[in-house]
Amino acid sequence: MNDPIADLCALLARLPGIGERTAARLAYFILGTDAGYAAALGQSVSSLHSRVRRCERCGNYALEARCRICTDSRRESRILCVVARPQDISALERGHAFSGRYFVLHGLLSPLDGRGPESLPVAEFLALLDEEPIEEVILATPLSVEGEATALFLAQELRDRKLRCTRIASGLPHGGELEYSDQVTLSRAFEGRREL
Amino acid sequence: MNDPIADLCALLARLPGIGERTAARLAYFILGTDAGYAAALGQSVSSLHSRVRRCERCGNYALEARCRICTDSRRESRILCVVARPQDISALERGHAFSGRYFVLHGLLSPLDGRGPESLPVAEFLALLDEEPIEEVILATPLSVEGEATALFLAQELRDRKLRCTRIASGLPHGGELEYSDQVTLSRAFEGRREL
Repeated sequence: MNDPIADLCALLARLPGIGERTAARLAYFILGTDAGYAAALGQSVSSLHSRVRRCERCGNYALEARCRICTDSRRESRILCVVARPQDISALERGHAFSGRYFVLHGLLSPLDGRGPESLPVAEFLALLDEEPIEEVILATPLSVEGEATALFLAQELRDRKLRCTRIASGLPHGGELEYSDQVTLSRAFEGRREL
Repeated sequence: MNDPIADLCALLARLPGIGERTAARLAYFILGTDAGYAAALGQSVSSLHSRVRRCERCGNYALEARCRICTDSRRESRILCVVARPQDISALERGHAFSGRYFVLHGLLSPLDGRGPESLPVAEFLALLDEEPIEEVILATPLSVEGEATALFLAQELRDRKLRCTRIASGLPHGGELEYSDQVTLSRAFEGRREL
């Protein structure tokens, strides 16, 4: 193509949540702002894949062979939290919700999209459990259909092992109103009720 | 800084309408998608400033010395439309609201921000009127305070010249930007223009 602005708009419009109008707005902003910023942003995007790799232990994004969390000796080594994506780790770390280590699936089971168990790093996951003194696996895949299916599949794989296999709770979010909650969430909140 | 993901998030968060969360979402998307896309996007952003220049006649973004519109002999040469930004031309062209040529101010008067008449390309604008057989100048700066002030200032500058000086009509809502207006509104604004 011969129009750099239109080219950039088309590329930006492939980003999630960025429509054609927003893409144009961003492209014009980049063009209208100082060239140094555009150069830095372009370089940052271009070099991202080569600068960031996957942690050889857990699959999280890392700058070295192992990520910051896997190399942190203060992390609880008996609890392993399984997540779908590296950004899920970022969310959990922001909330200080968990002090153990992670394992990233980089995907979920999705039969409708043709993604079966072979698309998940099951062998690596089981090898990790063989190597480390893990006593509990927390399945923290999303509460979506794919996330639930993946959690059930992994729980099945762990059935014969001597370890606790748990699933993050499903219920109303903090501050949630019953009135505005969907029926599945309400049902789950009742199913998962605890003694007070 | 040493964290490429955090670096990219910080750069993306400087884009208009992109908060920290959206920036993180975009960064993770770029990292999670194929490296070829990231390379193309980065290259597109990096090269934008060097590939795009300003048209020597009108100030619009251009690939050659003159932009597509200035070199298009089918454009009406007796009517000149003055806009604040190149993206305003894109918006007008999308709506097919105008068949003449343009002049881009690349800014507006804004006394509160210390931008007075010296910040506008007034000399270039008047020189253009001397050189070309322009019979009507349409002031299509935004309907904002700055846009109105700029239109009044330019109308003042043109008072002693033998040409029609018009302002786009208030088909656009008060404070509205050309870039975000629908095509019908833009057309109506052109049709309803008045003498100043």
